[in-house]
Amino acid sequence: MIKVVGEHIPNMPWEDRPQGKNANSPVWRYSKNPVIGRNPAPNVSRIFNSAVASWKDGGFVGVFRAETCSGIPYLYYGFSENALEWRFGDSAIRITDENGNDVSPSYAYDPRLIRIGDTYHIVWCTNFHGASIGIATTTDFRTFTSKGNGFLPFNRNGVLFPRKVGGNYLILTRPSDSGHTPFGDIFISESSDLLHWGNHKWVMGKSGEWWQSVKIGAGCAPIETEEGWLLFYHGVTGTCSGFVYSMGAALLDLDDPSKVLHRCGNFLLTPEEEYEERGFVPNVVFPCAALVDAATNRIAIYYGAADTNTALCFTTVDDVISFIKKHDTIK
Amino acid sequence: MIKVVGEHIPNMPWEDRPQGKNANSPVWRYSKNPVIGRNPAPNVSRIFNSAVASWKDGGFVGVFRAETCSGIPYLYYGFSENALEWRFGDSAIRITDENGNDVSPSYAYDPRLIRIGDTYHIVWCTNFHGASIGIATTTDFRTFTSKGNGFLPFNRNGVLFPRKVGGNYLILTRPSDSGHTPFGDIFISESSDLLHWGNHKWVMGKSGEWWQSVKIGAGCAPIETEEGWLLFYHGVTGTCSGFVYSMGAALLDLDDPSKVLHRCGNFLLTPEEEYEERGFVPNVVFPCAALVDAATNRIAIYYGAADTNTALCFTTVDDVISFIKKHDTIK
Amino acid sequence: MIKVVGEHIPNMPWEDRPQGKNANSPVWRYSKNPVIGRNPAPNVSRIFNSAVASWKDGGFVGVFRAETCSGIPYLYYGFSENALEWRFGDSAIRITDENGNDVSPSYAYDPRLIRIGDTYHIVWCTNFHGASIGIATTTDFRTFTSKGNGFLPFNRNGVLFPRKVGGNYLILTRPSDSGHTPFGDIFISESSDLLHWGNHKWVMGKSGEWWQSVKIGAGCAPIETEEGWLLFYHGVTGTCSGFVYSMGAALLDLDDPSKVLHRCGNFLLTPEEEYEERGFVPNVVFPCAALVDAATNRIAIYYGAADTNTALCFTTVDDVISFIKKHDTIK
Amino acid sequence: MIKVVGEHIPNMPWEDRPQGKNANSPVWRYSKNPVIGRNPAPNVSRIFNSAVASWKDGGFVGVFRAETCSGIPYLYYGFSENALEWRFGDSAIRITDENGNDVSPSYAYDPRLIRIGDTYHIVWCTNFHGASIGIATTTDFRTFTSKGNGFLPFNRNGVLFPRKVGGNYLILTRPSDSGHTPFGDIFISESSDLLHWGNHKWVMGKSGEWWQSVKIGAGCAPIETEEGWLLFYHGVTGTCSGFVYSMGAALLDLDDPSKVLHRCGNFLLTPEEEYEERGFVPNVVFPCAALVDAATNRIAIYYGAADTNTALCFTTVDDVISFIKKHDTIK
Amino acid sequence: MIKVVGEHIPNMPWEDRPQGKNANSPVWRYSKNPVIGRNPAPNVSRIFNSAVASWKDGGFVGVFRAETCSGIPYLYYGFSENALEWRFGDSAIRITDENGNDVSPSYAYDPRLIRIGDTYHIVWCTNFHGASIGIATTTDFRTFTSKGNGFLPFNRNGVLFPRKVGGNYLILTRPSDSGHTPFGDIFISESSDLLHWGNHKWVMGKSGEWWQSVKIGAGCAPIETEEGWLLFYHGVTGTCSGFVYSMGAALLDLDDPSKVLHRCGNFLLTPEEEYEERGFVPNVVFPCAALVDAATNRIAIYYGAADTNTALCFTTVDDVISFIKKHDTIK
Amino acid sequence: MIKVVGEHIPNMPWEDRPQGKNANSPVWRYSKNPVIGRNPAPNVSRIFNSAVASWKDGGFVGVFRAETCSGIPYLYYGFSENALEWRFGDSAIRITDENGNDVSPSYAYDPRLIRIGDTYHIVWCTNFHGASIGIATTTDFRTFTSKGNGFLPFNRNGVLFPRKVGGNYLILTRPSDSGHTPFGDIFISESSDLLHWGNHKWVMGKSGEWWQSVKIGAGCAPIETEEGWLLFYHGVTGTCSGFVYSMGAALLDLDDPSKVLHRCGNFLLTPEEEYEERGFVPNVVFPCAALVDAATNRIAIYYGAADTNTALCFTTVDDVISFIKKHDTIK
Repeated sequence: MIKVVGEHIPNMPWEDRPQGKNANSPVWRYSKNPVIGRNPAPNVSRIFNSAVASWKDGGFVGVFRAETCSGIPYLYYGFSENALEWRFGDSAIRITDENGNDVSPSYAYDPRLIRIGDTYHIVWCTNFHGASIGIATTTDFRTFTSKGNGFLPFNRNGVLFPRKVGGNYLILTRPSDSGHTPFGDIFISESSDLLHWGNHKWVMGKSGEWWQSVKIGAGCAPIETEEGWLLFYHGVTGTCSGFVYSMGAALLDLDDPSKVLHRCGNFLLTPEEEYEERGFVPNVVFPCAALVDAATNRIAIYYGAADTNTALCFTTVDDVISFIKKHDTIK
Repeated sequence: MIKVVGEHIPNMPWEDRPQGKNANSPVWRYSKNPVIGRNPAPNVSRIFNSAVASWKDGGFVGVFRAETCSGIPYLYYGFSENALEWRFGDSAIRITDENGNDVSPSYAYDPRLIRIGDTYHIVWCTNFHGASIGIATTTDFRTFTSKGNGFLPFNRNGVLFPRKVGGNYLILTRPSDSGHTPFGDIFISESSDLLHWGNHKWVMGKSGEWWQSVKIGAGCAPIETEEGWLLFYHGVTGTCSGFVYSMGAALLDLDDPSKVLHRCGNFLLTPEEEYEERGFVPNVVFPCAALVDAATNRIAIYYGAADTNTALCFTTVDDVISFIKKHDTIK
Repeated sequence: MIKVVGEHIPNMPWEDRPQGKNANSPVWRYSKNPVIGRNPAPNVSRIFNSAVASWKDGGFVGVFRAETCSGIPYLYYGFSENALEWRFGDSAIRITDENGNDVSPSYAYDPRLIRIGDTYHIVWCTNFHGASIGIATTTDFRTFTSKGNGFLPFNRNGVLFPRKVGGNYLILTRPSDSGHTPFGDIFISESSDLLHWGNHKWVMGKSGEWWQSVKIGAGCAPIETEEGWLLFYHGVTGTCSGFVYSMGAALLDLDDPSKVLHRCGNFLLTPEEEYEERGFVPNVVFPCAALVDAATNRIAIYYGAADTNTALCFTTVDDVISFIKKHDTIK
Repeated sequence: MIKVVGEHIPNMPWEDRPQGKNANSPVWRYSKNPVIGRNPAPNVSRIFNSAVASWKDGGFVGVFRAETCSGIPYLYYGFSENALEWRFGDSAIRITDENGNDVSPSYAYDPRLIRIGDTYHIVWCTNFHGASIGIATTTDFRTFTSKGNGFLPFNRNGVLFPRKVGGNYLILTRPSDSGHTPFGDIFISESSDLLHWGNHKWVMGKSGEWWQSVKIGAGCAPIETEEGWLLFYHGVTGTCSGFVYSMGAALLDLDDPSKVLHRCGNFLLTPEEEYEERGFVPNVVFPCAALVDAATNRIAIYYGAADTNTALCFTTVDDVISFIKKHDTIK
Repeated sequence: MIKVVGEHIPNMPWEDRPQGKNANSPVWRYSKNPVIGRNPAPNVSRIFNSAVASWKDGGFVGVFRAETCSGIPYLYYGFSENALEWRFGDSAIRITDENGNDVSPSYAYDPRLIRIGDTYHIVWCTNFHGASIGIATTTDFRTFTSKGNGFLPFNRNGVLFPRKVGGNYLILTRPSDSGHTPFGDIFISESSDLLHWGNHKWVMGKSGEWWQSVKIGAGCAPIETEEGWLLFYHGVTGTCSGFVYSMGAALLDLDDPSKVLHRCGNFLLTPEEEYEERGFVPNVVFPCAALVDAATNRIAIYYGAADTNTALCFTTVDDVISFIKKHDTIK
Repeated sequence: MIKVVGEHIPNMPWEDRPQGKNANSPVWRYSKNPVIGRNPAPNVSRIFNSAVASWKDGGFVGVFRAETCSGIPYLYYGFSENALEWRFGDSAIRITDENGNDVSPSYAYDPRLIRIGDTYHIVWCTNFHGASIGIATTTDFRTFTSKGNGFLPFNRNGVLFPRKVGGNYLILTRPSDSGHTPFGDIFISESSDLLHWGNHKWVMGKSGEWWQSVKIGAGCAPIETEEGWLLFYHGVTGTCSGFVYSMGAALLDLDDPSKVLHRCGNFLLTPEEEYEERGFVPNVVFPCAALVDAATNRIAIYYGAADTNTALCFTTVDDVISFIKKHDTIK
């Protein structure tokens, strides 16, 4: 079993792989998907593209893209005992600066949630004169402190690494522009304070495989394994009726994650189920978070489906790394 | 109960609000939707975006966007006893000028049907060297008399008020261009003869709430209440896979309807059901007509779904006005 | 000599046709063009696309598109003894409603100036939630009274006829949208009060001759001749470096000007001189006004050149009508 | 019964027309559609837009657009006893030149399969510095020999006639460009060697019926009848959420197939079922092959559905020709 | 001196290279440019992108893109004693089929003129349901016989080789689409009869040097030298104000001209003079023909300037081949 | 006289304001413009959008956008005694990392040159997987040391402040995308090491004045005055033939330059001269550097003209600040 650096989460969601289906992927869906469906809370129309993490008490915490009934997305927090049923906050998370002043953005979406030590880092797409990366921290999910404007527009899909590397915070982002952009590569940046970022490097871009031939963006926080950082990301292709978002995976070098060791030419998950194909934006699977149990190498991936639902799929570290290597496109 | 100016229609369609669902809206769907499905008549592929009214005999009459099997839309009339099951005409409505000459347009779509006194006014999108507003009148649904070209292209979503105001006919329209336009506001115009229109005023435009951030257009004929003209309209947002049409509402000043008294920031209805999300144009709810019973303040709204089906939803004047005020964006 | 209805203007600008050049057109340029060049007045960067008329005292009056040094266009008036050298107003024309309230638009451009009896009518492109037609009247060039919003957006190139026809004011306009639109036909509308317009008819559109294959728009106020209304208009073609504007001509039926009697397949003027080809928008000739001497049938056409200069060209009624008929594309 | 030139295929798939449905078309769907669904083979995500033919042993053979799990489409062959259940090859067809060198393209899609004598001709969309027409032949479905580059880019939807006409091979193609093109007409070309093509003629283009108002392309190989070549083709319309593909039909002159004798204004099939409306590209029916039994005039049409499934529908030569003539748009 | 296969043309236009200028190119302009300016003939507004050849009597003949005063381009022929001053035909060339029927296209532009033996071949951009390649032959410049439709749309910039190679006619073309296309590579095709073309090969495409980074197209007929076929072509770059056309050069293999031996990374000529930068389309130099004197290796290149003028520049075979090799981008 | 912090440069270029012209601006052009014209150096086609500074020996040094004859731009250095006539380097500047490895980008353009103490900082648009900001330093103009990738794509128009403020380097940049972008605002960022940037703030964006209604970008390095940082920048407007670039000015707060104190609604310079209106990109004035003499407050501004020439204009600190305040748009 491949060695994984991480928590032991015995109560994380899990189902064994179903039998008898054509196994074109090492990933299988949760049989009770979607986990979160339409109108999940007062004044909230849809929850999707959201992130969860383990909570100190053995339960789970999450930050959710809540599409309110005005159509404007905000971040909501939620707590859960089983990471399946959630109690959401009553309203959007209020973000403050270090002096407690409200600096909540006019909209916020596609949050990731990364625990570094005891601090939870929320990274989301915020409005800073165009789409940009917002970063805030919390330890109690009551107070959320902004780290300021560390990124210029136009940027999205920011994902922090779960620990410092070489003494610096590391982040993956996807610079492009503010709309439904037909281009976008993944870059990596470093910072000592979460506010000043630099020494940017290009990690990887769109590729010859058609499912990721338009643009790509980091998905879940990288998972540390002895084989490298395991990254789940989304790849996008274009059709005459719009974009299709699938999920792919790659392994990044542990010490220099700008170096891609292996990258899977096959998608791991592509829209096939009704809750992925039908909704506000048809044909989207968009991974944002993964729970990993370092004792069993089980992975539960949370992904947005059709910009409408939150869904769950499973795999193991060993299965997915084996699959990446089998379909490797790096020489 | 808010005072409503209008008919008593005891036999209009109605269902009470279902229990137990998350009530993010004061509007609920008819349980037997769609009212009109695929291939509803010979040579007619789909009927949607259509309008109904009470008929003199206690029944109902309607004008329907009938997408023929050539893909070209025409207007069909229909009669019904219960406003649910319809007997459609055998072919497209024939429109004549005052001398009886056939002036039927090469295509016609998205009709509204407004009774002013004993005269039924059909207002639709017609082809006048581009999309424009057609107006015709009938008292018997056998002869339909064109009022001539009162509007220049490019215009759509014309909706007459159900009575003259200040001695003039009033109409709401949505000028823009001839295609799948990414902009469009609602204007109001006045006329003494339905042929010469002027003194145009801007009523309202797209707005900061994302569901109506691309364009808007009037839906049902305004309903006269003591609180103002109650207007159901559609708002449009853009995704990487096309537009999404939702239903909103506003209250206009009784004497000067160019003045918006209250406008609801939340949508009232957004595509959630399969017959709204799947079809010729996915993700469309498009209100075109409302039956109102002035005795009970019940409202039955007819809306097109996915450019494929005709569906029905319900609310009451009091519920919807209360909701508009709760989520008011004026001031 | 073709009979022309109009003034005798003995002092209007004139030069005889130069000898020896290849005569591909019945129109020739003023040898001292441009009449108005760069920075013609304080805070005014360019004057072009402007209109002049005879003034009661034997002089001339004009309304000018003055591109201020903020880049925003406004209307300026000007007086002249010879229609060549102009004294401009100190600032933009102030437009008021009937009660004297300032209703000046936030920008105004491409004015036409039509004298109907003793009243001068300014028709321009105004900002009414998008490009639309503004109409104001004056008798003294001190007070300019708006006639209100008679047109919905999006419309431009409004040109009134110099007298009522059939008891109504008539106007030519070019509905399209608000940008650098790649389409646009000429329509005619009627009104009894300049505020309510209707009975719209299509007059003519873009055509197979490439110089007018993208869009067209009315230019000078129609000139009344026994052969019909003589209309100078602009036609636009597209290149890989933008649009090219040329000048064409047509004859409209005297009693029903929606009927085109003759239309010239050849352009009369196309950008060839440096002041037409070089400037803020290269390759534009844009006619806006014509002085006609009914005694000699001489015509002096004022046209904007390259959105930078005001220029002048000459022809006669007989020459141009003969040329139109020679290159007629109607039947 | 109309005389048909072709095989007797007693075991071809067939179902009688279902009773009781509104008969807006002479075509009805197979009740067990889709014939081929998601993940039909290892490393193959979807099979659609594919072609079948009778095989010498009384069975059937097919060439399939197999969308692999990298999102890149390749051609796969398959064998079947009943033309419903298929045994696919293990990997993409390998195409060689006459010397046996591998000249397989980097992608290949939308194959047609035409038997001319004992030779099977595969015509597909290939990558020749842009989308172009590939042609290869086989007699054993083991060796597939490329005929070289007979077409320049950009071209798609190549369909050979099932016999030479006037001593030449004939092909229908749809020149346009390389993307999701909003234009495209059907042309016919002749060749003596499948490598040099010329004497190109225009056959037919997009049309006034909205379902085929954007572009069209040949579908199944033309069926020879005494009334002319029966051609099933696809027509495309545009919505604010993308294209919709329907199926139409026409009759071409037997001796000069560039001459369209009859063309049906109504579509024969338009997306209505879930497997046609939901998938990788919603709202696509795309006919690619037809089995015809000359003894009964039964036709089984194979069509791609939603770029995801392979489906089947039925009609008869007599029914469809009668319908074409009833809705004829020629003259 | 490099051996050139071709005529001896002692009276072809020539000027020696001017002294003292910075020599960034082996090409220099004719000091009396433009050779043909505005309004060069009755009803002709501009002549540009035109081709000339030696005539049997020691004079010269040409085929010209004549932009008529309707803006529609046609082909005119012309004769000249010195290849500088031209007598043009009175009207457009009339093209007939082999039976003498008029098959003249509705427009025609950018002709090339290639003498093969005693036959002159005109290759131009014609209208065959979109831009395509027309080919006609003449021996007397009175009768011009069409060779039929040898090319499908969309194609432009067809240039024949001046002799058969390997027993076949060869042509270079630039397939793309019908508008101001932002892409386009050069392909080569072969034919035995000028009507059936095939065995197409890709020759070269846009390149990393910015002046040819958008699209390229063949210019003059290839010049046969012992070093290979010398090809002058145009390369296009894009700016925020449209395209810029420059002239480049390459050497193709004598026996297999699909093989590029050397390709010059530097342009040879780019718009710098007013007659190249100002006009109907600013910033265009577009080579269409070259006269070569095999006795001296002198080359006179005719090029269109700004889609307005015909201009001339000079070089020698040796100078230009030396420059190509110096700035070679092949390997 | 307003107090200016800066050098005394007695030999900087200067001409007094010419008499007698309409003074719509406080800026006047150098009478011998352009300073650098076409083909100024071997293999260099055009030099424009370039920056100069005083050199230690009383002369001047510059970094130039040199458009080579391959169309690819590179940075060249140059020396001059009078800042008018320049000796350019023989080839593109070679940029190295701290270890001396060549890290020169594949293209480089629009350099600025800012002296901070004795170190010259070059800031330019570089290729880092799309347009981004490059920063390199030199003290001798022989060795140019890259500061690494401090900015993510897509960004342009980076301009450093000439001293640290609050202990940090400050830079203005214009994030947008990689093409001819129709949007872009000016942001300010801080750094302690020129490699890690953050605490980004929005400074100002496009504005209601049409000359700067599309996008803006910083031009010259800010000039320190007692009234604030004087910033010359470019503003862009759009026409149907492309963009027009003008020069504007603003005053930023000395201590917090993200705060705009005054901003001029009028442009200071707009294309009017032939060397600004005609060239590779017509209608561009693009300021990149200013020499300021603190003793006289004279300013000489270097600007690119038409992406073809380098030109010079003059003003004084007092004149320009007075003009900014006169046409102030801040409150």
